[in-house]
Amino acid sequence: MKTSVTWTLCAIAAATLAVSGHAFAQQKRTNEPVQTIPAVRNIDPAKVALGKKLFFDPRLSKSGFISCNSCHNLSMGGTDNLKTSIGHNWQQGPINSPTVLNSSLNLAQFWDGRAATLKEQAGGPIANPGEMAFTHELAVDTLKSIPGYVAEFKQVFGHDKLTIDEVTTAIAAFEETLVTPNSRFDRWLDGDDRALVKNELDGYKLFKDSGCVACHNGPNLGGNSFQKMGVVQAYKTASTAQGRVEVTGKDADRLNFKVPTLRNIELTYPYFHDGAAETMTQAVDLMGRLQLGREFSQDENAKIVAFLKTLTGQQPQFALPILPPSTDKTPKPRPFN
Amino acid sequence: MKTSVTWTLCAIAAATLAVSGHAFAQQKRTNEPVQTIPAVRNIDPAKVALGKKLFFDPRLSKSGFISCNSCHNLSMGGTDNLKTSIGHNWQQGPINSPTVLNSSLNLAQFWDGRAATLKEQAGGPIANPGEMAFTHELAVDTLKSIPGYVAEFKQVFGHDKLTIDEVTTAIAAFEETLVTPNSRFDRWLDGDDRALVKNELDGYKLFKDSGCVACHNGPNLGGNSFQKMGVVQAYKTASTAQGRVEVTGKDADRLNFKVPTLRNIELTYPYFHDGAAETMTQAVDLMGRLQLGREFSQDENAKIVAFLKTLTGQQPQFALPILPPSTDKTPKPRPFN
Repeated sequence: MKTSVTWTLCAIAAATLAVSGHAFAQQKRTNEPVQTIPAVRNIDPAKVALGKKLFFDPRLSKSGFISCNSCHNLSMGGTDNLKTSIGHNWQQGPINSPTVLNSSLNLAQFWDGRAATLKEQAGGPIANPGEMAFTHELAVDTLKSIPGYVAEFKQVFGHDKLTIDEVTTAIAAFEETLVTPNSRFDRWLDGDDRALVKNELDGYKLFKDSGCVACHNGPNLGGNSFQKMGVVQAYKTASTAQGRVEVTGKDADRLNFKVPTLRNIELTYPYFHDGAAETMTQAVDLMGRLQLGREFSQDENAKIVAFLKTLTGQQPQFALPILPPSTDKTPKPRPFN
Repeated sequence: MKTSVTWTLCAIAAATLAVSGHAFAQQKRTNEPVQTIPAVRNIDPAKVALGKKLFFDPRLSKSGFISCNSCHNLSMGGTDNLKTSIGHNWQQGPINSPTVLNSSLNLAQFWDGRAATLKEQAGGPIANPGEMAFTHELAVDTLKSIPGYVAEFKQVFGHDKLTIDEVTTAIAAFEETLVTPNSRFDRWLDGDDRALVKNELDGYKLFKDSGCVACHNGPNLGGNSFQKMGVVQAYKTASTAQGRVEVTGKDADRLNFKVPTLRNIELTYPYFHDGAAETMTQAVDLMGRLQLGREFSQDENAKIVAFLKTLTGQQPQFALPILPPSTDKTPKPRPFN
């Protein structure tokens, strides 16, 4: 009997130790230069549902063929996976489409940060002659001719006004929900030691020690500063994009671009503002040389790439929206004139 | 006590009467020339899931920009709502994209029926230089370079072979699920008298009595025969599409086209093989004149249109698929060369 009690006590003690050991392992890593993605809060579900429809609606373009999702495809990491995008009449865009995923975490929108908010950004492509090639007026006229939209706007906004302001507000609300939590790296940050293997942790250490993290930090591993493309070596590109100078007019801002997020980088190829880096290996190699003056060995490069692949988070999951039909009064799309 | 028993019996009798009265009202209408949409059966869910990804994957096109869903947009009634479609390099297609919804009910695919099955159809646009402008070989090479697809094909088909045969089989399996049951008209066919109002029933009667139903019958209200466009009056069109003759070589089949389904017609504008009829009102008017030699009054036309709007069924509801990413070995899309 005594032996049995002793064993029981031992078992309890061992279990307690195991639990506290586990609790210790699960301690959040709060001293890292990268943080987990904050949860989305307080977004009106009805506004999000409307914004989702608008995001998928090609009737916001002159052709009736191009929607927000055409270049920020939510099946493909919120990008089009093209070097530069295809716009109205198959025009070649001047720049690589940045991902819409986690874009609410950026300090500004577009590569040159010319839009302060997602709402401001959302109006840009609609009226850009090289992208959706429409006007805000025509987009609004189109929506106003569709009873399903008119009713939904009224329900969401509580008034009869339907302007580009309501349109971009709703699109931005949807975009704010497009976060990708619970990547393996986030689980590691949350204390799960088994979320990463040694190779990936080695890559993360290299990423920090080499200085990548100086720009790619915070919850979005980027998106929170403008930096010059080509700090140590000048960047050679055929792209005419000048970056931040086009917003500030300051010559010092020439070739300054918003640092892109590294979240979901496995999905958002090709890389850089000109889409010139086709693979993560190329991007890491070039970033090392151009920004840090460092030549990563093949092994180092592979480790950093292994780390980068741990940044793929849960992709937004939602039902494909069904769009309210046009009516006889809806302006016709004009793809070919 | 006796009274109580009597009341109870009365209540039971009344309830029985109500139930049988209800059962009478719910009697299915089985003598109509239109039938409800049969339920989808026995389709492998894993094959459907793979086919859905392929349907949404623009990497089956040369540009990496055009997917099946581009022209058969499941947010918009399985069509692009354009007169004729936009293909690679913004080429103007020769014909209006037919809806993919309920297409499994058609006797053949394409306006001229040149594909006997959905599987055969699925290979067409991929390799059509005016549409996705790819080749079956390059499409398959692309998929084979993507580990997520390789694993999923193996799981679905139970072998390592990944050819255009497996690709089109999976796409067709997904398309077979794209039926739209439970339209208001189907509920009326199922015996629900309240599903339609008088105006709509008047329209249905006109639709039958005028002869529309001679071609637009069966569960898909069409899709089950080829008919000449312009029976009573010749059809004037700028379209060069010749229809069924291009398949059979028989001159009698010139301008014979597959009768389009009228299901979800409210969503599938514009109408006819050349997309020339912008509204249902125009389509009904022209069909009356060209096919039946009948001039519908405004009131008659409006009634038929009211009936047609009852054919909008439950649209397919599913999560937007997340596509497996390309790898360094994946052939690059070539949108601009």
